[in-house]
Amino acid sequence: MKYTEKGVEELKIAYIGGGSRGWAWGLMSDLAKADDIHGTVALYDIDMEAAEHNEIIGNMYTALPESKSNWKYKATKTIEEALTGADFVIISILPGTFDEMESDVHAPEKYGIYQAVGDTTGPGGIIRALRTLPMIEYIAKKIEECCPGAWVINYTNPMTVITKTLYKVFPKIKAFGCCHEVFGTQKLLAYMLGENGIANVQREEIKVNVIGVNHFTWLTEAKYKNIDLFPMYRDFVEKHYEEGVRNKEEDDHWFNKFFGCDNRVKFDLFRRYGYIAAAGDRHLAEFCEGKWFLESPEKVDAWKFGLTPVSWRKQNLKDRLAKSEGLRSGTVPVEIKETGEDGVNQIRALLGLCEMVTNVNIPNIGQIPNLPLGAVVETNAAFRAGSLTPVFAGEIPTNIYALITRAVAEQEMVVEAAANRDLELAFTAFANNSLVNLSCEDARALFDEMIENTKEYLKEYFK
Amino acid sequence: MKYTEKGVEELKIAYIGGGSRGWAWGLMSDLAKADDIHGTVALYDIDMEAAEHNEIIGNMYTALPESKSNWKYKATKTIEEALTGADFVIISILPGTFDEMESDVHAPEKYGIYQAVGDTTGPGGIIRALRTLPMIEYIAKKIEECCPGAWVINYTNPMTVITKTLYKVFPKIKAFGCCHEVFGTQKLLAYMLGENGIANVQREEIKVNVIGVNHFTWLTEAKYKNIDLFPMYRDFVEKHYEEGVRNKEEDDHWFNKFFGCDNRVKFDLFRRYGYIAAAGDRHLAEFCEGKWFLESPEKVDAWKFGLTPVSWRKQNLKDRLAKSEGLRSGTVPVEIKETGEDGVNQIRALLGLCEMVTNVNIPNIGQIPNLPLGAVVETNAAFRAGSLTPVFAGEIPTNIYALITRAVAEQEMVVEAAANRDLELAFTAFANNSLVNLSCEDARALFDEMIENTKEYLKEYFK
Amino acid sequence: MKYTEKGVEELKIAYIGGGSRGWAWGLMSDLAKADDIHGTVALYDIDMEAAEHNEIIGNMYTALPESKSNWKYKATKTIEEALTGADFVIISILPGTFDEMESDVHAPEKYGIYQAVGDTTGPGGIIRALRTLPMIEYIAKKIEECCPGAWVINYTNPMTVITKTLYKVFPKIKAFGCCHEVFGTQKLLAYMLGENGIANVQREEIKVNVIGVNHFTWLTEAKYKNIDLFPMYRDFVEKHYEEGVRNKEEDDHWFNKFFGCDNRVKFDLFRRYGYIAAAGDRHLAEFCEGKWFLESPEKVDAWKFGLTPVSWRKQNLKDRLAKSEGLRSGTVPVEIKETGEDGVNQIRALLGLCEMVTNVNIPNIGQIPNLPLGAVVETNAAFRAGSLTPVFAGEIPTNIYALITRAVAEQEMVVEAAANRDLELAFTAFANNSLVNLSCEDARALFDEMIENTKEYLKEYFK
Amino acid sequence: MKYTEKGVEELKIAYIGGGSRGWAWGLMSDLAKADDIHGTVALYDIDMEAAEHNEIIGNMYTALPESKSNWKYKATKTIEEALTGADFVIISILPGTFDEMESDVHAPEKYGIYQAVGDTTGPGGIIRALRTLPMIEYIAKKIEECCPGAWVINYTNPMTVITKTLYKVFPKIKAFGCCHEVFGTQKLLAYMLGENGIANVQREEIKVNVIGVNHFTWLTEAKYKNIDLFPMYRDFVEKHYEEGVRNKEEDDHWFNKFFGCDNRVKFDLFRRYGYIAAAGDRHLAEFCEGKWFLESPEKVDAWKFGLTPVSWRKQNLKDRLAKSEGLRSGTVPVEIKETGEDGVNQIRALLGLCEMVTNVNIPNIGQIPNLPLGAVVETNAAFRAGSLTPVFAGEIPTNIYALITRAVAEQEMVVEAAANRDLELAFTAFANNSLVNLSCEDARALFDEMIENTKEYLKEYFK
Repeated sequence: MKYTEKGVEELKIAYIGGGSRGWAWGLMSDLAKADDIHGTVALYDIDMEAAEHNEIIGNMYTALPESKSNWKYKATKTIEEALTGADFVIISILPGTFDEMESDVHAPEKYGIYQAVGDTTGPGGIIRALRTLPMIEYIAKKIEECCPGAWVINYTNPMTVITKTLYKVFPKIKAFGCCHEVFGTQKLLAYMLGENGIANVQREEIKVNVIGVNHFTWLTEAKYKNIDLFPMYRDFVEKHYEEGVRNKEEDDHWFNKFFGCDNRVKFDLFRRYGYIAAAGDRHLAEFCEGKWFLESPEKVDAWKFGLTPVSWRKQNLKDRLAKSEGLRSGTVPVEIKETGEDGVNQIRALLGLCEMVTNVNIPNIGQIPNLPLGAVVETNAAFRAGSLTPVFAGEIPTNIYALITRAVAEQEMVVEAAANRDLELAFTAFANNSLVNLSCEDARALFDEMIENTKEYLKEYFK
Repeated sequence: MKYTEKGVEELKIAYIGGGSRGWAWGLMSDLAKADDIHGTVALYDIDMEAAEHNEIIGNMYTALPESKSNWKYKATKTIEEALTGADFVIISILPGTFDEMESDVHAPEKYGIYQAVGDTTGPGGIIRALRTLPMIEYIAKKIEECCPGAWVINYTNPMTVITKTLYKVFPKIKAFGCCHEVFGTQKLLAYMLGENGIANVQREEIKVNVIGVNHFTWLTEAKYKNIDLFPMYRDFVEKHYEEGVRNKEEDDHWFNKFFGCDNRVKFDLFRRYGYIAAAGDRHLAEFCEGKWFLESPEKVDAWKFGLTPVSWRKQNLKDRLAKSEGLRSGTVPVEIKETGEDGVNQIRALLGLCEMVTNVNIPNIGQIPNLPLGAVVETNAAFRAGSLTPVFAGEIPTNIYALITRAVAEQEMVVEAAANRDLELAFTAFANNSLVNLSCEDARALFDEMIENTKEYLKEYFK
Repeated sequence: MKYTEKGVEELKIAYIGGGSRGWAWGLMSDLAKADDIHGTVALYDIDMEAAEHNEIIGNMYTALPESKSNWKYKATKTIEEALTGADFVIISILPGTFDEMESDVHAPEKYGIYQAVGDTTGPGGIIRALRTLPMIEYIAKKIEECCPGAWVINYTNPMTVITKTLYKVFPKIKAFGCCHEVFGTQKLLAYMLGENGIANVQREEIKVNVIGVNHFTWLTEAKYKNIDLFPMYRDFVEKHYEEGVRNKEEDDHWFNKFFGCDNRVKFDLFRRYGYIAAAGDRHLAEFCEGKWFLESPEKVDAWKFGLTPVSWRKQNLKDRLAKSEGLRSGTVPVEIKETGEDGVNQIRALLGLCEMVTNVNIPNIGQIPNLPLGAVVETNAAFRAGSLTPVFAGEIPTNIYALITRAVAEQEMVVEAAANRDLELAFTAFANNSLVNLSCEDARALFDEMIENTKEYLKEYFK
Repeated sequence: MKYTEKGVEELKIAYIGGGSRGWAWGLMSDLAKADDIHGTVALYDIDMEAAEHNEIIGNMYTALPESKSNWKYKATKTIEEALTGADFVIISILPGTFDEMESDVHAPEKYGIYQAVGDTTGPGGIIRALRTLPMIEYIAKKIEECCPGAWVINYTNPMTVITKTLYKVFPKIKAFGCCHEVFGTQKLLAYMLGENGIANVQREEIKVNVIGVNHFTWLTEAKYKNIDLFPMYRDFVEKHYEEGVRNKEEDDHWFNKFFGCDNRVKFDLFRRYGYIAAAGDRHLAEFCEGKWFLESPEKVDAWKFGLTPVSWRKQNLKDRLAKSEGLRSGTVPVEIKETGEDGVNQIRALLGLCEMVTNVNIPNIGQIPNLPLGAVVETNAAFRAGSLTPVFAGEIPTNIYALITRAVAEQEMVVEAAANRDLELAFTAFANNSLVNLSCEDARALFDEMIENTKEYLKEYFK
């Protein structure tokens, strides 16, 4: 790369999982909008054809008259080719297929265990981690080999254990996990300000202290100018506790019509703990006792959030494949849109083109002093030329300490279990999960079944 | 006090709750057996008559021909009289009456919540704490006023929050909580050695690393001479998992016939976590998910431990009152017996008459680095002339980290709630308890009912 | 205060030491240049007349046609009047007179101890602290009483112990110490970039990780865009080690012609330790062994920095008094100038009008994990609406760990000594200072003499 | 090994440096006095003949009629032979010859740097470490290979960096450093009790809290029964400050007539810092500013301790060689004597034959929370069957924090420098040493000279 009067040119981004139908197009759009970074995006995917399609589509974005930058997209046959010389690496993969995810999400239902997402925690999240982490090990080793100095941005779930594994395999990696869930809560707070007569506040103007782990993040401070938003939120929760609040703005985003929530879980957690849970309700519920929000599909309806069936994901994938074909062939026009993601700005900040403080997932080096060092946590961090440094988030407050430590301990066990191919330790984590509230025998039976269901992607564990 | 050729003479022990029918007699017996400490035991109790009876009984112990020491027992009208000049203070009180305990233990049953003891954690333990801690505040202030340099030994439950409150009120107090539950597990390990051909091992010979909080302590190391007992225990658990093991030796102790267990909970926890839980099953079960061991009286039977009904405690109290009357009037003879408690030896060690390493409950100053500083924890400690110093116990292993942190967080909240008379914070702790797995509304209804039931002892919270 | 379309209006700043001849005028200039904050500056000074003069001068700044904001300056008779209702408090006082400073700086010379400044560490800094901290206690109590929610910016030296004392007296204070010394090193690095063909870099573009204590701060990272500046600095040091580098830009600043340095001390410290010391050489030298840089005035000359004699300060004060009179009477025009201070922008960021990451002195809550919690340290911090949060600085590298811990321990002792009026502890700190390399007897004699010399301001210690 | 009615039989101790003329004989004597451990001592030495002589002498000890145990001594040709099957390993070697030590101790004198011992810190200790640590690496690797489960007791200086290196090379090693210097201070306190009318106190009865690093240990608590010894020590110091106190009992020990001290340095440090330094004055002085106690031989005389010239060591070695020959040939009788070392009892405790709390050098896992984790520190520890666990020592008090951290930082740098064969880092440590108070140039010249002098043993650094 080189710094020029255009900003930075000849940058190389390696995109692992570059055949993505959906998320990749958002990145292309965001890159097209940035006017001070230019270069190459190397698309690598185990589905080479998908990567090649995205090469075509990506170059269409660059060719748009409103594109402000000059990016060349290129599918690569090998991961080494993508990574060599990369300044940034993006990891956004689907571990296994939706068949495995079907087992993750739906196999536990026979024990009365329902999961809204099943990709982060819960029985599904844990099994998903087991099959993902060996893949991540491979990627981490390739990064160490091909581009050890590159910045690595992970978007894949389960984010925490993936980010941790990247560091475990290659301790000097400069990796972070990037997630927009907190933004939704900032928008909810902006909506609340609107209800209180302060209109048109942007989410970035809500300054929050973020603490916790990905998808189970909490705000311990939220300020708008000189207004402490906690007292206002307390009233807001009491006002809307029963019916909830649907965040309209969120609904505009393409995927939210199937993923939305009315924030009732968030409000219940505020009543219980006095802090603002800051992720979508579907994720939050999965970190709590199963009996609270996920006892049955009826209860989930009453709490006004959705269980995302894997059948929907399968159908949606077909739609996206069709859209991909449309884009590639030109029957569907490529369009530059607002994604709301921070990724491209984070890249710019790391290049020294701007400076920003935003939430990110990285190993705990003390930003949360009462969580284990090395555990991957989500807090604010400062992105500045060549450095990403956590902002001190403070201790997890006592009220929510037990919730977060439970999640952290599970993640630490899962990472260790995967690293050592140790299914016994994985079972300890599984049986201790808040949704898996079963006798030791039942937990074992379910665990064994889910392993069996997904064994094609777990061969590493049975060598 | 003074050091003489007889050891230490003119020692003064203040016994708060000195009217006890039962535990006090054990202390009298242990003091009679020690040959190098002598002095006065001041008995204070809100039931003055009970203290006076124990004055008579205590002096009978001293008068026994086999008594090796010279102790004078004296009931005092005021707590100040008992404490002034005391070198040691023993706190062993019953907070409230068994009527309050009836609510603690049985009120939650209508929500399907069963408790084996109800004095440590669970809804009962939390409510008990709320009424006990203001009493402890009073005692701590009196200690600061009357005998700030005395060593304070607490035997009262809930032990952790009481010990913490003593330090909160009077930070320079030299207090510790003393509990024999770990000894039972050492005896179980000795029994196991017997099964493996190594007979007659004494519990003190089993060297253990103790870690956790009172009644939820764990062993991370257990050694006999050069034998690591973990592999042997693993086999032992598998062999006895279904039928359990009743520790015969334990049964000889007077109260164990109503309190025994077959260690099946302990074995299940070993299967789940790989570490040796080291307290009675009745206590251990209360720290776990309710569904695991305490789902119903039938499940409890199957796990082979007992729910102690408060009706039994009420009957037992009558029996003990009768025994007290018998002792006092001479119709029942006083006898020196083995109690298995460490208390008197701890006193001797603090006086520099011996040296010992044993488990104790004191604030965490780093002996467990991954628990909050200041939280009261149970680990080994060295008792040496004038000093009690924790032995470094190490980090809580990841496998059980979430279990212990949940207990610690609850205890920290309960202490804070009591200190600030803050029932909202108490409710946060209550609703987050592993046995109280209820909706926010149900949790609130139960909490309110239990507060109402015991309000006579909660007046401080409603000023 | 209120937020309007002009930014924030009706802000109140209390300026303690508001009669300052010099520093105050810089603030006035900076405030006049900011276009989005407006309000009142209350000037309090024990020299009421000086404050009144600055009231006149300040209002002259506001009246300048190029002033972008609307600030009203008002001298107050009492500190309470100044503080009541204040949103921000600035503390910039001279503790004692230059007569006391004469003893601080010059009394040790008879023992071969030379000090370049004598206001931070060394025998002079310690004695200065002893007389300053009781004043700071008074101010802290008044802030707690009159404006407990105000942000408090301290500019007074010794900065570390003052900031610590503010927190010690009023733990909920929102105070920080603000110092521009690091900026000089950023400018030196910009100069170095110029030598390497990269011209016109602004100091803010040099992104640094700041770690240490005030006036003894170090850079463990320094980046410009994607350039790691450490290898370049290594060459720069070797090239200029002998003759040094005089930072021209610095010289333009009014006070630097008497305070400048050629950075030879900085270069020597880099050779010794491999990290970039980031304060003026006059300050750096005082934290090192006396023999290294301050052995004699001749050595100081050879190291190309200056010992600032107090006689110069006395003369300079006369000049500033004359200038004050000139400004007040209109014979010298008020002018808006660049001060290079961050203070006004920090105020704007705390109001939510911008966001910034810059270095600041606040208690260690973990931003430097291997320094004692609670010690005041200097690191980067994020200034955002209503919150000031340290950026994680990392551990002090082993190479300089002993240097920093020595400074920290001294400061902790001095704060404790002042708080408890404990001259014995103050002596322990004094005798352990790196410049006071004397026998216990000589150290005591010097200490006693310096206490005697300044006893008029130490009455608190002899009550 | 096996446990029998005789205690433990068939134990194997590997003694690295087993050709020692002096220290080995003490061990033989201590083993002969223990009645419950028996087995083989394998003597390995690079001087095979010396080991063979000790084989003969050791078996003479066993043959003594008063010997209570049955130990067979055997010289081995290879280190592997000695280590294989060992239950315990003792490391007591001389790194290099007294010629190298002559450079360590005397080369710095031309810069006015005097060292009393030169084996721990100071320029001599650092250079000695550089040549020793590669040897220790080799030994650690051999232990990992041949007897990874053995307990390893190091007696060699510089003890701290050696113990640290053992752990660095083989992290699972069960090693500790063993030193009797603290005992001398306990004896001094017993002497003080005698002066105060309490006679015949044994050193073990003085219960102390030990904190610091080897040869720079401090007592923060010292108790005899219920007596706090600090106030008594304060008076004792004032009484004896000028003339000092020669500990008579110490003088009986064979080597103390050349190594004694009158404790004036200890008293001066108490005056300065208020804590009891607990090592011989010769060692303590080397950790302080050179100007305080080691400015010149005359000053050393005035402080009443000795500089041990290496010429004396050379002569003494000749004497010991003669004694060895005498013992071997039977002209000098072998005798069982009191050594005062704890080593054999530590072995017995680790075997579960007794239990003890004593001071030991092991990595900091939190026993001193305000020192870096992993740094080797000296504190009390509990020796119990199969486990060695530090007793929590508490934080280094602020008064002496800077002293200890300076020593720790030096040791951490030296270990790192040796591990990486990095003489630049070694120089940073060297130039920062409190005795090396030189300009950067002079420090470099001295460093280079000392390296040159001892280069035969530093070949690893020049590959």
